[in-house]
Amino acid sequence: MLANPINLEEKFNKFSKHWSPRVIAEMNDYQFKLVKIQGEFTWHDHPNTDEVFIVIEGSMEIELRSQKIFLSAGEMFIVPKGVEHKPFAEDECKIMVVEPQGVFNTGEAGGELTAPNDIWI
Amino acid sequence: MLANPINLEEKFNKFSKHWSPRVIAEMNDYQFKLVKIQGEFTWHDHPNTDEVFIVIEGSMEIELRSQKIFLSAGEMFIVPKGVEHKPFAEDECKIMVVEPQGVFNTGEAGGELTAPNDIWI
Repeated sequence: MLANPINLEEKFNKFSKHWSPRVIAEMNDYQFKLVKIQGEFTWHDHPNTDEVFIVIEGSMEIELRSQKIFLSAGEMFIVPKGVEHKPFAEDECKIMVVEPQGVFNTGEAGGELTAPNDIWI
Repeated sequence: MLANPINLEEKFNKFSKHWSPRVIAEMNDYQFKLVKIQGEFTWHDHPNTDEVFIVIEGSMEIELRSQKIFLSAGEMFIVPKGVEHKPFAEDECKIMVVEPQGVFNTGEAGGELTAPNDIWI
């Protein structure tokens, strides 16, 4: 079977829902997920893992209890495990998230923005 | 202490040597590395881990024993653990590699292109 490169733009074109991560690749037991975000997310943390945010297109903020991180395309930030954070994007922003399999987007906070965590595209 | 976003372009401007990975971030026990590549690398594999290639600028090839993968900016590919591969770039290409701490660029093949594996920028 031939293997193919993964094209981020093609993958982003396959979905439109905000705050709904789509898995595009796995490395060992870690997943690479694409997410389209807009508006304000929920305060939450991930008690067992760091979480990587890479901005592919647009810009976003990650609010921590102590400061705000402003991220534009070509920038990344790693939220350490257990650190509360609240993502926000004024306009639609396309990001890639890297984290272990099985991590939910709202951590243990739950709520209506909790998305299924293993939808592949 | 204030945390800052990691800007890939700024980090790429801090070094010029080819085939010499620079660590820019850690997620749990995984590292995100930037590499500038040009020319032909060594056939090698990583017997204990998958390896992620994300092209940030330019284009490259990853030759496998069974096929060639062509990657341009905005594309990624994951070489499964144990699979022999040989990266190549005709013109300089800027890539991000993701893999566990302690992985050497030439795997167990060794040779003169083997670089230190834990240089932070």
